[in-house]
Amino acid sequence: MSGSSSGVADLLGVLAYAELTAFLQLAEDAARHAPTLNDRAALGDLAATEYTHFRLLRDRLAALGVDPEEAMAPFVKPLDDWHEQTRPGDWLEALVKAYVGTGIALDFYREAAAHVDEETRQLVEEVLADEGRSEFAVERVGAALKEDPKLSGRLALWARRMVGEALSQGQHVAAARPELATLLVNTAGEDITRMFTRLTEAHGKRMEALGLTPGP
Amino acid sequence: MSGSSSGVADLLGVLAYAELTAFLQLAEDAARHAPTLNDRAALGDLAATEYTHFRLLRDRLAALGVDPEEAMAPFVKPLDDWHEQTRPGDWLEALVKAYVGTGIALDFYREAAAHVDEETRQLVEEVLADEGRSEFAVERVGAALKEDPKLSGRLALWARRMVGEALSQGQHVAAARPELATLLVNTAGEDITRMFTRLTEAHGKRMEALGLTPGP
Repeated sequence: MSGSSSGVADLLGVLAYAELTAFLQLAEDAARHAPTLNDRAALGDLAATEYTHFRLLRDRLAALGVDPEEAMAPFVKPLDDWHEQTRPGDWLEALVKAYVGTGIALDFYREAAAHVDEETRQLVEEVLADEGRSEFAVERVGAALKEDPKLSGRLALWARRMVGEALSQGQHVAAARPELATLLVNTAGEDITRMFTRLTEAHGKRMEALGLTPGP
Repeated sequence: MSGSSSGVADLLGVLAYAELTAFLQLAEDAARHAPTLNDRAALGDLAATEYTHFRLLRDRLAALGVDPEEAMAPFVKPLDDWHEQTRPGDWLEALVKAYVGTGIALDFYREAAAHVDEETRQLVEEVLADEGRSEFAVERVGAALKEDPKLSGRLALWARRMVGEALSQGQHVAAARPELATLLVNTAGEDITRMFTRLTEAHGKRMEALGLTPGP
């Protein structure tokens, strides 16, 4: 493949593995931490949606003549490491992770949308249409904070750790996959740091939505 | 609800919880045991299908005016116990469990189909249309047995344990939920033992398909 198309394979590969592993991890969190069957089903619903996205990405890779397994391989370690470092200890942490994690993924899709071909952009838009699906987490975390406002310190730290680890893994990936990094920043003379800043700002808005005000 | 309609709620409830928990357990097995990303995706695909079935059952319960959580509640312990007692130790055990477990579930749908209203029967047929989805497990187990025929003893025992535990949990459920048992056997003067015999025979056929001949 040419340089820029292997950037696209990287982009679809990282998103595909992110969706596959999010699906499996959310399912595990639902099984392990959900306090009621309805909660389990709600997080399960989000997990199943991630699987649908994975399937779209895998099919798109196959249509481009790329082996999905090969395209995902370079991103297995950074994403597995991220999940390892952000394993929820309880239901509220699982909810915050679901909301923050899918939020980061959607930001990344949005960043990607500007730099891909028309068919891939359609896929991105289909994924972005599911944006509201993690809103149930906001409601549930909000209700828990109302009952016990002292939870907010712990959960805010938790969320900050998640985005910190994501940025750290993101920097490894950008260094190891220069074509992907180039693909994402090749407009308007941007550099990757600026993209990370935008992702951090979007994270701040999600923290507000969760009722977790930024720390000092 | 009347006697027979509460039998239907039980039937949809046990199937719903079976699908929800199969979805979550298969996802966990895929994350934990799949040797390659393609294998992980294949078992993930089966898991996501179970979730689709769960959603059909939940919606059908809701349409009947039954709270899905309430309908599932009586079956949480027997099904969780079954999964606890049949936790795969490796990828081949996970595959055999996927094939045998979804097979038992499909047998149960077929048994159920004869005893439910028209709309519920449509749902059952929609689920049964997914029957081929666990066939990939047959291929992969077959390939492993070809390479190492000595595996067959251990895997045959494993499969027998699974069906044994299923029958044992099934008997608990039949005793605790007489309306459900009645619903399933109220034709032709059958008793529940005969239904269990049919399920055991179907299991034997699956063992042959897997290349796991019945023990002495």
